[in-house]
Amino acid sequence: MSTPYSNKEVNGDKSSDVVWHEAAVSHEARVKLNGHKPAVLWFTGLSGSGKSTVANAVDYMLHQLGAKTYVLDGDNVRHGLNGDLGFSDAGRIENIRRIGEVSKLFVDAGLLVSSAFISPFNADRQMVRDLLAEGEFIEVFIDTPLAVCEQRDPKGLYQKARAGEIKNFTGIDSAYEAPVNPEVHVETADKSVEECAQQVVQYLKQQEYI
Amino acid sequence: MSTPYSNKEVNGDKSSDVVWHEAAVSHEARVKLNGHKPAVLWFTGLSGSGKSTVANAVDYMLHQLGAKTYVLDGDNVRHGLNGDLGFSDAGRIENIRRIGEVSKLFVDAGLLVSSAFISPFNADRQMVRDLLAEGEFIEVFIDTPLAVCEQRDPKGLYQKARAGEIKNFTGIDSAYEAPVNPEVHVETADKSVEECAQQVVQYLKQQEYI
Repeated sequence: MSTPYSNKEVNGDKSSDVVWHEAAVSHEARVKLNGHKPAVLWFTGLSGSGKSTVANAVDYMLHQLGAKTYVLDGDNVRHGLNGDLGFSDAGRIENIRRIGEVSKLFVDAGLLVSSAFISPFNADRQMVRDLLAEGEFIEVFIDTPLAVCEQRDPKGLYQKARAGEIKNFTGIDSAYEAPVNPEVHVETADKSVEECAQQVVQYLKQQEYI
Repeated sequence: MSTPYSNKEVNGDKSSDVVWHEAAVSHEARVKLNGHKPAVLWFTGLSGSGKSTVANAVDYMLHQLGAKTYVLDGDNVRHGLNGDLGFSDAGRIENIRRIGEVSKLFVDAGLLVSSAFISPFNADRQMVRDLLAEGEFIEVFIDTPLAVCEQRDPKGLYQKARAGEIKNFTGIDSAYEAPVNPEVHVETADKSVEECAQQVVQYLKQQEYI
C-alpha cells in the first residue's frame, strides 16, 4: 500500500514526527468516509419518558440508512465508564461531563451518536453543548407528561420516590428543567415510537446531516 | 422507511418497551455494516518511543483500506475526558481505566480504535484486556531503547526528569514493565515508521480482522 510516509524514520529527527502528526487522518477524512455529518443527538427527558426507546429507534433507522452510529445510555455507561460515580451534585455533573466528552470523541470519529440520559438541568446540557462545535450538538427533548411517566414507571422508581425510598428523584422532589429552545421537541403523547423517531430523522434530513 | 416497529406505542404497555430494546441495532449489525472486525490496538511503550506516531500511521493505513477507525491519545483525552486527573497512582490507574472503558465503547460501536498511552504497568494493561472479549484487545509493544527515546526527547521531558524537575518519570525513576506476550512486538530500531505500521496492519490481515 502506498503512503506518503515512505522515507520517515521512527528514529529520525524531530521534524519527521511533526510531518507524521500532520499527516494523520483528519476529522474531515473520517466524515467523508462515513458519508454523512457527525453529531451528538442529546436526548433529554424524564425517567420513563421514552428517551432510550426513541434513541434506539432513531439509531436503528439511521443504521438502516447506512449511517455510522452508536448509542450511549445507562446500559453501557453506568456500570462501565461512570461506574465509580455516585448521585451527589458533583457526581451528577461529572456523569454528564464524561458522557459529553465521550460523545465529542465519537463525533470527532465521524459518528452520529445518540446519548440518552435524563440530564435535567440546563446548565449541564449547556456544558455539553459548549464542548462541541456549532451544529454538532442536537438537543432532542422527549416531552412526555410526568403523569404518563409515573403511570408507566417501568423500573418502579417513581413508586420508590413517592414512598421516600429514593431522594432527589427528577420530577418528584428534584426539578426537571425543560429545554428552552431544543433543536427537536418531540411531544410523545398520541405518537408511536416510530413517529417520534421519524421526527428526529426528518430533522437530520432537513438540516442535511444525512 | 419500513421498520419492525410500526405498531409499538411510546405510551403503550411495558412489553412493547422490551421489544424495542431487543430490536435495537446489535453489535453484530454494526460490525457487519463496517465490514471488518473491531478491536482496540493498545500501543504501549516509553515516552518518545513512537507510540502515537505509529498508531497514527496504522490508523492512516486502515482508513485508506476503508476501515472505520479512531485514535485515542494524549491530544484528545488528556485535556478532555481525563482533564481532571492528576499523576498519583490512583490518577494513573483511573486514567487507564477510563481509556479502556472508552475503547470498549468504540469496539462495541464496531471500530478499530488505536489507543496510544505509555501504560507502563502490566496490571493496568491487564485491567483493560479483561474489560474486552477474547480477540478484542491487541497489545502492541512499541519497543524503542530508552537511550534512543532519551536522545530524541521530543517534549524535553527526559531532560526535566534527569534534572529532577519531573518525578516518577517512566524509564528514569519509575519502571516500565515490558509486555510479556504482546500480540505485536514492534522493534523500531532501523525500521521506518511505515515498516512499523505495516507490521501491525499485517497482523490484522493475518488474523483476519480486515
